[in-house]
Amino acid sequence: MDEEKSIKWRFKANEEVSRASAYTIKGVFYTLLKHLSDSGDDRPVISLGRGDPSASPCFRTTPVAEDAVVEALQSSDFNSCAPDFGILPARRSVAEYLSCDLPYKLSPDDVYLTVGAKQAIEIILPALVRPGANILLPKPGYPLYEAHAALSHLEVRHFDLLPEKGWEVDLDGLKALANDKTIAMVIVNPGNPCGNVFAYEHLEKVSETARELGILVIADEVYDHLAFGNTPFVPMREFAATVPVLTLGSISKRWNVPGWRLGWIVTCDPNGILQNSGIVDCIKHCLNVTSRPTTFVQGAIPQIFAKTTEDFFLNTLNLLREAAETCYDKLKDIPCITCPHKPEGSMFVMVKLNLSLLEGIEDDMEFCIKLVKEESVIILPGVALGLKNWLRITFAIELSSLEDGLARLKAFCSRHSKKH
Amino acid sequence: MDEEKSIKWRFKANEEVSRASAYTIKGVFYTLLKHLSDSGDDRPVISLGRGDPSASPCFRTTPVAEDAVVEALQSSDFNSCAPDFGILPARRSVAEYLSCDLPYKLSPDDVYLTVGAKQAIEIILPALVRPGANILLPKPGYPLYEAHAALSHLEVRHFDLLPEKGWEVDLDGLKALANDKTIAMVIVNPGNPCGNVFAYEHLEKVSETARELGILVIADEVYDHLAFGNTPFVPMREFAATVPVLTLGSISKRWNVPGWRLGWIVTCDPNGILQNSGIVDCIKHCLNVTSRPTTFVQGAIPQIFAKTTEDFFLNTLNLLREAAETCYDKLKDIPCITCPHKPEGSMFVMVKLNLSLLEGIEDDMEFCIKLVKEESVIILPGVALGLKNWLRITFAIELSSLEDGLARLKAFCSRHSKKH
Repeated sequence: MDEEKSIKWRFKANEEVSRASAYTIKGVFYTLLKHLSDSGDDRPVISLGRGDPSASPCFRTTPVAEDAVVEALQSSDFNSCAPDFGILPARRSVAEYLSCDLPYKLSPDDVYLTVGAKQAIEIILPALVRPGANILLPKPGYPLYEAHAALSHLEVRHFDLLPEKGWEVDLDGLKALANDKTIAMVIVNPGNPCGNVFAYEHLEKVSETARELGILVIADEVYDHLAFGNTPFVPMREFAATVPVLTLGSISKRWNVPGWRLGWIVTCDPNGILQNSGIVDCIKHCLNVTSRPTTFVQGAIPQIFAKTTEDFFLNTLNLLREAAETCYDKLKDIPCITCPHKPEGSMFVMVKLNLSLLEGIEDDMEFCIKLVKEESVIILPGVALGLKNWLRITFAIELSSLEDGLARLKAFCSRHSKKH
Repeated sequence: MDEEKSIKWRFKANEEVSRASAYTIKGVFYTLLKHLSDSGDDRPVISLGRGDPSASPCFRTTPVAEDAVVEALQSSDFNSCAPDFGILPARRSVAEYLSCDLPYKLSPDDVYLTVGAKQAIEIILPALVRPGANILLPKPGYPLYEAHAALSHLEVRHFDLLPEKGWEVDLDGLKALANDKTIAMVIVNPGNPCGNVFAYEHLEKVSETARELGILVIADEVYDHLAFGNTPFVPMREFAATVPVLTLGSISKRWNVPGWRLGWIVTCDPNGILQNSGIVDCIKHCLNVTSRPTTFVQGAIPQIFAKTTEDFFLNTLNLLREAAETCYDKLKDIPCITCPHKPEGSMFVMVKLNLSLLEGIEDDMEFCIKLVKEESVIILPGVALGLKNWLRITFAIELSSLEDGLARLKAFCSRHSKKH
């Protein structure tokens, strides 16, 4: 023991990594969960926090997808490491899947398979870094972008999404932020955390603005096709002739299988601008030194895409629509919560907390901690997404649990409301 | 088109990434494969290049492992995203699996699941970086370490593995390289690319040297248990009371399923030094912002470990032993190739090229290019592993293909040998 103390160990942690990971949503959840264990509440915990309903029986994936994976595994054709960009049949299927309704066709060579869309972010940001460069991220947004920007030493500038305009991008504000070191902007559509879906006309304006600024658009479309309101989902790549687009996506949300870890980066670039700028090669180089998704899941992709029926997708949309409406209606009954925009897509709604109506609650984090302690309900504080004193509520759970959770939320708010 | 040219796009590739990926083995294979397509040779291509025999029928994984994955998938209990460090039952199984014969017990909290051992390297190197720090890597070695060190701005210093001493670490040379900025050393055991297995006594000396230098040991044991010669495999973590060890491993090689992408980082640290130095937290932070392996593959781990029989492992060892012996014997018959050490483990042997006996071949790269062109045989030039004018030969393929490949290699050498 004495001897142990006399040794000078020369290794230490990299503090930059710890700072970067401070941006993650999970860190906030861990904090909330700590308070849960103190609560002594016998009721079941209701999480309206995460966008992963795959454990709910009603959101179980289609047997077609499971069968495709089993078949690929049992063929033993997919036990080897996949090539750096993914196996060709899977890349071809993704290219076809994403080419639907496009004015140009994507090729398998445009598709790079990743370990979920999470790894897509991990690969794209370092590929774009240059000394002094900055990237424009939405506020509120998805903090994994902030984390990987920090790890890559890429400066972040935040543009606003405007609640009063259905969470559209504040394009004037965005233009004012950009300078000659700005390289890219990120949009998440359908929106996480706002539950909005960008209209065609708005995406067109986004593309024109990005072109004017000379920046590329990273289109995070992880929730693609999960649009159940009046605004249809339009992929950003429809405007790739105006501005080069990197589409990020996965099977995680539409098929409810985030644990399968199959995502993609797709270069949507009919004018070859990403190719000429060296970005495509740089993405390839990043892929060279990282892992690809499980090979037999890649092997299942052609079957999953070919055989999943419209029924399955419609059922998911119906479940989400009903849940979103229930959520919106119930929230209207809670005085200290304002919902500026009825959710039309993804699995979330972003609501504003009116703290002046509450007693003894300082901010959104305290609100969420007390809610966990007193009601065993988990909700994400907006501060985790860059919007203090807002809340992100997930409606993608079983309807009965959603109703129970929202009733507890209402009881909590009522109990803490200021007495007149 | 004219308009396209007038836009000043502000994004460019990150050249650092491209430089880092220049270190990969795959880059060299791509170069070799280009020459293959020119060859016009009708014979089947024989790859003695990669350590992935999973596509060969004789190396097919055990049905027990496939069944475990199918069962986990079909349970639908594993469709969600896994927790940041992996699911607990899998972490517990890995801890038990790796605790066998240890003087202390690993806990599930010591185990972090990764997307193959490749992601383990990706996570560990950034976690250790500090300004001006350096890491000691073996020469010859596995170039993914060099790639991620470059991406993390971690200086690399190479210590020698000594062919005349069965590829032992040159400990005196290693000590001379280290300074007060040295944080860690890497050993790969069983050895890739050398096919050696470190003896207990040598590992003990490694641990004492590392302790003296105040550095931790990263023990890459991806080929663990694939020791078929006279030296039994001893895990580095047996010496973790002397020096903290980070064990990297996976099911890829022992079960022949590299495409399943299930690996681990294990902190072997009975004295709590990694914990106290903040390294453990930093690894956790890196895991926070990256993807975990496919959840249902994690879900299958307890069954895979519990049910795989000794027969399956013995069969693999017998296949490798026979192949290694055949390889060694055939290579002895080729005058321009010297094999300093009969392989005892992993799937490779490292041999020296005597260029003075060959006509019109400048170096190992040219040797391998001409070999591909003329004989459709792929072998990795040592330059890809830091040892110019050596060759890495994989013997882990079907025996008949191995014999065919080595016969072609012999014919090639004979055709290019200097006439007296």
